[in-house]
Amino acid sequence: MSSGNTLDDEETFKILIATDVHLGYLEKDAIRGNDSYNTLNEILNCAKTNKVDFILLGGDLFHDNKPSRRCLHNCITMLRRYCMGDSPIHFNILSDQTVNFNTTQFPWVNYQDENLNISIPVFSIHGNHDDPTGAEGLCALDLLGASGLINHFGHSNSVERIEISPILMQKGNTKLALYGLGSIPDERLYRMFVNKQVTMLRPKEDPDEWFNLFAIHQNRSKHGPTNYIPEQFLDDFLDLVVWGHEHECLITPTRNEQQLFYVTQPGSSVATSLSPGEATKKHIGLLRVKGRKKMNLEKIPLKTVRQFFIQDVVLADYQDLFTPDTPQVTKKVENLCHAKVTEMLEEAERERLGCPLTPEKPLIRLRVDYSGGFDTFNTSRFSQKFVDRVANPKDIIHFLRRREQKEDIKGLTPAEGLRVEDLVKQYFQAAEQTVQLSLLTEQGMGKAIQEFVDKDEKDAIEELITYQLEKTQRHLQARGVTTEQDIDTEVKGVGLAWEVGAINRAKAHRLERGDNPGDKDISDDFADVTMDSDEGSVPFPPPTRGRGRGGRGRGGRGRGRGEG
Amino acid sequence: MSSGNTLDDEETFKILIATDVHLGYLEKDAIRGNDSYNTLNEILNCAKTNKVDFILLGGDLFHDNKPSRRCLHNCITMLRRYCMGDSPIHFNILSDQTVNFNTTQFPWVNYQDENLNISIPVFSIHGNHDDPTGAEGLCALDLLGASGLINHFGHSNSVERIEISPILMQKGNTKLALYGLGSIPDERLYRMFVNKQVTMLRPKEDPDEWFNLFAIHQNRSKHGPTNYIPEQFLDDFLDLVVWGHEHECLITPTRNEQQLFYVTQPGSSVATSLSPGEATKKHIGLLRVKGRKKMNLEKIPLKTVRQFFIQDVVLADYQDLFTPDTPQVTKKVENLCHAKVTEMLEEAERERLGCPLTPEKPLIRLRVDYSGGFDTFNTSRFSQKFVDRVANPKDIIHFLRRREQKEDIKGLTPAEGLRVEDLVKQYFQAAEQTVQLSLLTEQGMGKAIQEFVDKDEKDAIEELITYQLEKTQRHLQARGVTTEQDIDTEVKGVGLAWEVGAINRAKAHRLERGDNPGDKDISDDFADVTMDSDEGSVPFPPPTRGRGRGGRGRGGRGRGRGEG
Repeated sequence: MSSGNTLDDEETFKILIATDVHLGYLEKDAIRGNDSYNTLNEILNCAKTNKVDFILLGGDLFHDNKPSRRCLHNCITMLRRYCMGDSPIHFNILSDQTVNFNTTQFPWVNYQDENLNISIPVFSIHGNHDDPTGAEGLCALDLLGASGLINHFGHSNSVERIEISPILMQKGNTKLALYGLGSIPDERLYRMFVNKQVTMLRPKEDPDEWFNLFAIHQNRSKHGPTNYIPEQFLDDFLDLVVWGHEHECLITPTRNEQQLFYVTQPGSSVATSLSPGEATKKHIGLLRVKGRKKMNLEKIPLKTVRQFFIQDVVLADYQDLFTPDTPQVTKKVENLCHAKVTEMLEEAERERLGCPLTPEKPLIRLRVDYSGGFDTFNTSRFSQKFVDRVANPKDIIHFLRRREQKEDIKGLTPAEGLRVEDLVKQYFQAAEQTVQLSLLTEQGMGKAIQEFVDKDEKDAIEELITYQLEKTQRHLQARGVTTEQDIDTEVKGVGLAWEVGAINRAKAHRLERGDNPGDKDISDDFADVTMDSDEGSVPFPPPTRGRGRGGRGRGGRGRGRGEG
Repeated sequence: MSSGNTLDDEETFKILIATDVHLGYLEKDAIRGNDSYNTLNEILNCAKTNKVDFILLGGDLFHDNKPSRRCLHNCITMLRRYCMGDSPIHFNILSDQTVNFNTTQFPWVNYQDENLNISIPVFSIHGNHDDPTGAEGLCALDLLGASGLINHFGHSNSVERIEISPILMQKGNTKLALYGLGSIPDERLYRMFVNKQVTMLRPKEDPDEWFNLFAIHQNRSKHGPTNYIPEQFLDDFLDLVVWGHEHECLITPTRNEQQLFYVTQPGSSVATSLSPGEATKKHIGLLRVKGRKKMNLEKIPLKTVRQFFIQDVVLADYQDLFTPDTPQVTKKVENLCHAKVTEMLEEAERERLGCPLTPEKPLIRLRVDYSGGFDTFNTSRFSQKFVDRVANPKDIIHFLRRREQKEDIKGLTPAEGLRVEDLVKQYFQAAEQTVQLSLLTEQGMGKAIQEFVDKDEKDAIEELITYQLEKTQRHLQARGVTTEQDIDTEVKGVGLAWEVGAINRAKAHRLERGDNPGDKDISDDFADVTMDSDEGSVPFPPPTRGRGRGGRGRGGRGRGRGEG
C-alpha cells in the first residue's frame, strides 16, 4: 500500500475512488460466490489503511436492484466494521445538506450524526443496477443511508429538470465541490442535456476556488446516437469526472481536450461478463486533491479480484496446421484450443505467484472464430478437462463466426435465413465509410464532430450508424416499409447530424449561463504532485494518448467492452 | 401515558412489551397500507415517553420473511429515530454476549457498541413470519442487528438440541434473566421438549435471585395434539412468559397454577385476519420488575390501531321477521345485514370520538349463518354502500352455514358429496364426549391431563381429537383402509394419552436436573406494586379467572382465534 505521507497534509483531500462493486454478483456460484464480497472487503480495508477522508462510489454497489438478505447483511456488516470507529474526520461540509441528501429522513452527512461514530464516510451515487424503484423512489443504498452507513447523493427527484447541487467540502484551505448524478436511462438523460434540462449549480461565492469533482454512472461508450452521454455534454468547469458504469478499468485520468477536464474510469471491481473489457487488470484509485489545481490519482491494484484471461483464435489462420478438409480436423481444433487454454492457465498461475489473496481458479475465455467451414466441437466434454482449474469451466469456449460475417458483408451476399434487418445492417456497414459518412459530413458538422471522426472513433461511428439504422428499420417496418429499395430511400439524413446539433445546443446552454471554458489550464499545475506507489503513480498531465476505448484483454485479440 | 414515577426507581426494570407488529402487512392497500407502520411508531414513541430500560418484542416484527424495501426502510428509520440518542442506559449485562447474540458479527448488546449511541435497546426473538432462512440462517431481524438497531436473541442454531441461555441483566440490585426462543415449527419443538432436547440454562451463582422472563413465539392454542406448546412444558422456575404469535390481546398475566408462573399474551398490534381474536382491543405492556418477586404489568391501549368490529347473525333466529319462504326474503336479509353493519359503524364512530390517532374507517365483519334454506345475496353490491366508511368494504360479509353442519353431525346424516374424511370427522365429533373421551380417560390419565379436561378445555380436546382423527384418517387411507368400519377399529387408542405422557416426560426431565418447582409462591408479593395508568393497572395476583382462550370479539357471538 502507498505510503505517500509527505503529501498527506491537512490541506489535502484523500479520497478512495471505486465503482461498480456489483455486490452479490453470482453469489450462489460455488466458486465465485464470494468474489464480490471479498473485493468490497479489500476496498474498505484499503480505505482504512490509507486513512482516506472519504470513499466515493460511482454506482452499482449492488448487482441486484433487490439485493438478497445475505448481500445486504454482508454489506452492512462490512461497512459497520470498516467505516465506524474513532478516527476523526478532517473536513467540513458547507452546503445545504437537506439538498445534498434528499433521499433520507436524516439529511445530514453520517459523520455529523451525534449517534453514530463514523470514521470513513462513504458517498455514493446509485447505478443502473441499484437504481430507485417504487412509489417511494427508494434504492438499496437508501437502506444503508437510513442506517447511517453511507451517504447517498446525486438522486434527482424530478424527471422534468435536473439540478445537480454539489456537496461543498472544505479541508484546510482546499475546497472541494462534489457533484453526483445517479444513473438515469441514457436516452432520457441525453435528451435532457439537449433540452437544457440539466444544470450543475455552482457556489455563489468564489466559484473559481473550488475543485469540481463529478461522479456519473452512464454509458460512456456509444451504444447509439443518444444512448450514451458524450463528455462534451458535461460542464467544462469540472476538474475531474469519475465515470462509473463502464467496467473496463481505465482509471488513469484522460484529459478531454475540448472540455479541459479529466475523466477517470475506475471500472468494476468484479467481472460480470467475459468480455475483453473485464480482463483489464482491475484497480481502485486514491485521489489526492490539494487546493484548486493540484490533484493526483494513485492506482491501487485489487488483489482479491479473480484473474480473467481472454484470447481469440481464428481457425482459418492455422492453415499450416489444418483446414476444414483435414482428417480429424475437429480433434485438431480441440487440441489447439486445449493448448491455448492451458497456456492461459499457466500464465495465470505465474502471475498469481505470491498473491495469496487472489482466488486460485481464474476465469478463462477462448473465443473461437470457426468461419470458413469448420465445425464446432463438444464444449461440455472440453469443460470437463478444466473443471478443477478454471472458475468458469462451463463457458470457457465461445464459438463465433466473425470473419465469415465480414466477408459476407463486403460482398453483400446474404446468407440464407437472414432477416431484412440484417440485410440493411450489412448494407450500411459496408457502405458506411464512403457514401453514408460523407453524406452526414456534408450536413454541417462543426468542430465538435471532428473530435468524433478521428481514427480512434471509427468504431463508435459504425456502432452509432448501425444502431440508428436498426431503430429506423423497426420504425419503417412498423409503417409497412419492407423492401431494401424503400429503406435506402427513407434512411437518408439520420445519424450523426442531430447528435452534433445536440452537443452544440448543450454547449450553447452553458455559454448562455456565462460559463467561460477558456480561462484555465488545469494540467500545468499537476505535475508537481507525484508520489510513490505499488503500481507507480500517475502524475498529471499524463502522456498524450487516445482515450483507449474498447480496450483489449490481456492476451486478447478481440475488442469489446464490459459494462453492467 | 402513565406517570407512575414513584415506582420507577433505580432498582426497577421498566420494559416495554409488544409482539406481532407485522410490519408491512397489507402495505400496498390504499386504506390500510400504513397501519402497521403507524403502530410501530406509536409503540416506539411510547417506549421513549415512558423512558423504558428496553423494549422486548415477541417475534413477527415483520409480516413478510423478505420485507419490502419500503418496509425495511420504514423500520430502520423509526428505530434510528426513537432508539438512538443520549438517554443513558441503567442496566448492565452480565452474561456471555457471544452466546446471547449468536447471529451477528457484533456479538454484544447494541448500547455497548462504542460507535452507536443507543437510548433504547430493543431485544427481539424472531417469529414464524420473520424466521431465519437460507444457508446462512439469517432473518430480517439480522439486518437490523448488523446495523446495530436491535439485538436479536433466542436463535437456536441446532436442530438437535436447544439450549436457551439467558441474557443476564442487572439494574441496581434487581437481576433479570431474559430467556428467548425464536419461532420453531410447533410439532418439531413439541417433539424436542418430549425428547428432552430443550434445556433452559440457569446462572450458576445464586440462581434463585433472578427474575426469569421468557419470550416465546409458538401456538399457545391447541391446533392438534402436538401442534402447540403446552405451558406445562416450560420450566417452572420461570416467573413470566411473554407469549407471542397469538394475536388476541390477553395481556393481563394469567397464572398457570401448575407451573406457578404467569403468562402474558400481548397480542398483535395490527389485525391480520378478520377473526374475533383480532377484535379484542389491542394493547402493549409496560412491565416493571423490582427484585425477585415484584412485578407489575401496565396495559397501554394502542391508539393508532384501526378499530375492528365483528358480529354474527344467524338468519334462522329471525323467524319473526322472515323464513326462507318469505317473499323477497333475500332483500330482507340484506336489509338486516345493512342494519347490523350500520350499527357497528355507529358504535365505531362513538368509540373513536376524541381519538384523533385512530384511523377513520374501521374494519367491519358480519358473519352470516344462512343455514336452514336461506340464500346468499350479492356482496359486491352490498360492499358498494360502505365503500366510503369501511376499511375493508370488499369482505364485510362472510357467509357460513355453521348451524346446519352441527345438525347434520348430530343426526349423522351425511350431506351429499361429503368425503370419507368428513364422515369420520362427523362421527367422532358427535361421539367425542361419550364413547371416545371415556375410552381415552380409561387409558391412565394422570393429574396433568385433568387440567386439560376441565370445562374450559372442552374445545381444545375436541380440536385435538378432530386433528388426530384427520391425521389418522390420512394415514389409514394411505394404507388402503377406507370403510367406516375399518376406521372405527383402527382409530382406537390414539389421542390424548400420548400427550399426557409427553408432559410427564418433560416434567421428569426437569426434575432430573434437580429443579424444585414447589418452593415459591410468586403471587404473594406482587400486590404491593400498583400504579396509575390510562387503562388501569393490573396488580398481582390478578382475579382468578379462566385463561380466556378463544376470545370473543366486541359484540361478537362467535369464537375464533387470531394468530399469524
